[in-house]
Amino acid sequence: MSSTGATVVSGADVAATIRKDVRARAAEMASAGRPPHLDVLLIGDDPASAWYAGAKRTLGRRLGIDVRIVRLAAETPASEAAAAVGRASDDAEVDGVIVELPLPPGIPLPPLCDRLDPAKDVDGITPANRAALFDGREDRALLPATALSCIRMIERCGRTVRGAAVAVVGRGPTVGRPLAAALITRHATVTVCHTRTHDLSLVLREAEVVVAAAGVPRLVTGAMIRPGAAVIDAGTNQVGDDLVGDVERDSVAAVAGALTPVPGGVGTVTTAMIMANVIRAIDLQRAGEGSAGVAAP
Amino acid sequence: MSSTGATVVSGADVAATIRKDVRARAAEMASAGRPPHLDVLLIGDDPASAWYAGAKRTLGRRLGIDVRIVRLAAETPASEAAAAVGRASDDAEVDGVIVELPLPPGIPLPPLCDRLDPAKDVDGITPANRAALFDGREDRALLPATALSCIRMIERCGRTVRGAAVAVVGRGPTVGRPLAAALITRHATVTVCHTRTHDLSLVLREAEVVVAAAGVPRLVTGAMIRPGAAVIDAGTNQVGDDLVGDVERDSVAAVAGALTPVPGGVGTVTTAMIMANVIRAIDLQRAGEGSAGVAAP
Repeated sequence: MSSTGATVVSGADVAATIRKDVRARAAEMASAGRPPHLDVLLIGDDPASAWYAGAKRTLGRRLGIDVRIVRLAAETPASEAAAAVGRASDDAEVDGVIVELPLPPGIPLPPLCDRLDPAKDVDGITPANRAALFDGREDRALLPATALSCIRMIERCGRTVRGAAVAVVGRGPTVGRPLAAALITRHATVTVCHTRTHDLSLVLREAEVVVAAAGVPRLVTGAMIRPGAAVIDAGTNQVGDDLVGDVERDSVAAVAGALTPVPGGVGTVTTAMIMANVIRAIDLQRAGEGSAGVAAP
Repeated sequence: MSSTGATVVSGADVAATIRKDVRARAAEMASAGRPPHLDVLLIGDDPASAWYAGAKRTLGRRLGIDVRIVRLAAETPASEAAAAVGRASDDAEVDGVIVELPLPPGIPLPPLCDRLDPAKDVDGITPANRAALFDGREDRALLPATALSCIRMIERCGRTVRGAAVAVVGRGPTVGRPLAAALITRHATVTVCHTRTHDLSLVLREAEVVVAAAGVPRLVTGAMIRPGAAVIDAGTNQVGDDLVGDVERDSVAAVAGALTPVPGGVGTVTTAMIMANVIRAIDLQRAGEGSAGVAAP
């Protein structure tokens, strides 16, 4: 198949559809009682984290979701950070809790996860939600927003996940691993590649869909891609003043059938997806109230 | 590469090595206090489950591990089954707890997992252990014995897991998914295929190592395999009076470089591996006693 340039598929439409649904549900909830409420824990001074927290507050305001940013100093003891997560989890006025990552050195994530109520875990980081995702029992789980967004972008590129040969480049806990699990559950044939993969090209050339989530700027090049493949760029790397993906845009665009841009692709959908997860959390909490004895996902 | 017949690699040596280590550690523990103790919960009348429970007791006796089989009727209410798991978990004289699977219809697994102490979960079924496995944080986790056994058998076949292209056929919660996660952590490039994979041969022919864990008798045939590949058969299917693997032995043996048999392959190692997990559980419990506030894996 010859290719005269990939279609660049932005995340704008998908994000707009998600936002529209969220706005309608949030308005419903506000008139039935109070608007949805998301707590964002921002620990330390990472400028990107502060930016992402602010973006959530801005989007929340547009959609009718109250977003409170809970700030803690970088020097906060791990036990106090965990206690802050516990307070947000225990607060009946808080529907969802998200911890901005990365955490400052000295604050490990697992003790924070242990204090996070799985039913309020809107980025799917708790053991209960991760185990449910991993085992393909998603019906009562909250799943990582970026992984869900990648799947929506695959579909937006016109590809059917079921039965597709998908290569996931990267095995991190935020995108690569959760995405691979979710794709397996959705009946894709999934290959996970990473820094120790002997010949990345050999693997990628077999893939109908490539998701780049390695955190390495411009790792995936046109020479590695099967002509006509859909290439989803889940990378967000700060290079100088630029935000750069994991895909070398020009060379891939010349070979691929479809390509998602950075910025304006997966990331755009992810912020909207977190708000959709807040709505889902409320729905699951309400469904759970009726089913005594069933533990969170 | 031409092949004049695969080496059939039994699990006997690997199992013997594991058993020798376990026996030495168990003797040490017995003389320092009491022997290790494993509770096996056997719910219902599945004859295969009863056989596996008995095999654990027999092996435990040989190795110096006390194994108690706790029997519950198939009609036991789910809440009582969960309570039995909770009692075993809370018993200071019990070091490890395993629930024989499959459970009778009407008893779902998740509520049982919720009552199982992750530190005593010697087959890695609790959310805490599964999340740790999934996220590649294995240092304080207990992992599913069959997945660990498959990895030992890959190595026994003379293959290096790091960097290997491994195809895992099957995505079940007992073998396929946990094995894929453990292989990714050990730096293999992993493809997970399953019933919805369009062309299994196309995927398997790229693999240096194939692990068959689909639960389908003789699914993997010689025509699908790359000459010289190592083929690990993790299937145990009852066909009439025979125990049959997921690999069509004769046709695969003509093409593969190495092949593990059924019976006498992965399964042989798995029973020994559960005993090794009992020892590991005790080691982790002791290490954990010194580190207040750190939750189980």
